[in-house]
Amino acid sequence: MSDTLTVKASRFVSVLPHCTVLGMTVLHGDENGVQMSLPYSEQIIGNPASGVVAGGSLTTLMDTACGTAVFVALPGNELCPTLDLRVDYMRAARPGSDLIAQATVVRVTTSVVFTRCDVYQEINGERKEVARCTANFMRIGKQIGGAA
Amino acid sequence: MSDTLTVKASRFVSVLPHCTVLGMTVLHGDENGVQMSLPYSEQIIGNPASGVVAGGSLTTLMDTACGTAVFVALPGNELCPTLDLRVDYMRAARPGSDLIAQATVVRVTTSVVFTRCDVYQEINGERKEVARCTANFMRIGKQIGGAA
Amino acid sequence: MSDTLTVKASRFVSVLPHCTVLGMTVLHGDENGVQMSLPYSEQIIGNPASGVVAGGSLTTLMDTACGTAVFVALPGNELCPTLDLRVDYMRAARPGSDLIAQATVVRVTTSVVFTRCDVYQEINGERKEVARCTANFMRIGKQIGGAA
Amino acid sequence: MSDTLTVKASRFVSVLPHCTVLGMTVLHGDENGVQMSLPYSEQIIGNPASGVVAGGSLTTLMDTACGTAVFVALPGNELCPTLDLRVDYMRAARPGSDLIAQATVVRVTTSVVFTRCDVYQEINGERKEVARCTANFMRIGKQIGGAA
Repeated sequence: MSDTLTVKASRFVSVLPHCTVLGMTVLHGDENGVQMSLPYSEQIIGNPASGVVAGGSLTTLMDTACGTAVFVALPGNELCPTLDLRVDYMRAARPGSDLIAQATVVRVTTSVVFTRCDVYQEINGERKEVARCTANFMRIGKQIGGAA
Repeated sequence: MSDTLTVKASRFVSVLPHCTVLGMTVLHGDENGVQMSLPYSEQIIGNPASGVVAGGSLTTLMDTACGTAVFVALPGNELCPTLDLRVDYMRAARPGSDLIAQATVVRVTTSVVFTRCDVYQEINGERKEVARCTANFMRIGKQIGGAA
Repeated sequence: MSDTLTVKASRFVSVLPHCTVLGMTVLHGDENGVQMSLPYSEQIIGNPASGVVAGGSLTTLMDTACGTAVFVALPGNELCPTLDLRVDYMRAARPGSDLIAQATVVRVTTSVVFTRCDVYQEINGERKEVARCTANFMRIGKQIGGAA
Repeated sequence: MSDTLTVKASRFVSVLPHCTVLGMTVLHGDENGVQMSLPYSEQIIGNPASGVVAGGSLTTLMDTACGTAVFVALPGNELCPTLDLRVDYMRAARPGSDLIAQATVVRVTTSVVFTRCDVYQEINGERKEVARCTANFMRIGKQIGGAA
């Protein structure tokens, strides 16, 4: 079941242009959430002098991970636009190290899906929290293939 | 004074790679805030079928506009990383129409700068709110040229 | 019309126990928002040593003002629970001075109402921003009299 | 150590007037967070007809739990005002059942402490999420006894 959902998550992400450009990939997906990777590259740098990752790259990663988790958690191919999201930046990401996003579906109602996401790096075998996010998605009853 | 600050804002934005890629420009800047434009293009589309703008593009626009407003409002070249931001998406952006961001500096303290941003489109002479954002920035005492 | 809506707002607030306890009153209401007052009193103090107002009192004021603005902006007696809210505290409230909340309805859709609120004090004829809030409310189709 | 910190948490909460009025108590405290209880009572009801708990009561519970967790996690008696908080209401609280708040300190920096809180009820042996919160606190270097 989880393997099927990892495939479903990967398929969803593969058609998002910004994800392919940035090289985001799905590591794992199941009914509770997804884990994604954003490799360190020049394209996600916000400060050329320091090599520090742009906040916008992290936000895009988290928004994508939460949205993918929603898509995977719901049956069929239901598309839910982001209603709102809140991001906290907790630590400058370490240059050269990949970013891992762990998105969790916290609750599904008939009208809203509540999610959460943590982004971290593995530095010397230790997990370092970089940013976190809470995001809510609207269930508007659209399936992929129709206009969003 | 305002003209000087519009120039200061434009200079700040011109070195951010994602802004030049997306074609973001500063329309106006003064001590209270900045107005920026994100032209409609294929690069900001989230749903190829419908042409609807990606939420991530809007978030990037708002994060950039707020950050630029902070840079312009503070003396010198002080760099303040984003501490947190919250985004509400209120309406799907109309395909083909540019997006205008109006970012406002609400309050400056010795440790935090509070900002707000509204994104709208002009549709048939009417202002249509698309998204809004509140963002707080940390004053860490760094000047451009040092590592962020 | 506005007078009718001020009355509608006052009626709504009058049945909320915590509002009567704290002495919150409606100053004005119309289709765009409401203005409410929270008088300074011992009950809203968070720090007995300094007399500084508790953050929770401000949050309650803003949540109430936004919810009242939603109730007033919608026809009939539609009740919308809070979906989420975000509060930023910008300055310690001045002891002894009343707090004014200005809540605005930013957008009404069929499923969500978006609001914003600013809280300030008038100190020596100057408006001092104390806190701000964005809050979204769900339209669940309930009218007052039914169970919320 | 944990027992000492549970006592430190309880002492902190005992001087907050709104906590004693509402009957909030500390169940446990350690360096990672605190667990608090808000008993069901008439005072926390938002809708007299349905007996549903007021959103403001939940927000107060979460703000208090996060603030207490910060106080417990830091050495000495350092007081940190709330900088911002975001609350998501996920489910109407069940009348008659106590509310449990689990607040966690996610990261401590020299200027900000990042926290998170989940509120749930135990219904028939099952944990039901009611609301969640993320809150950031400023480290302004004040100790209890000084003015906040």
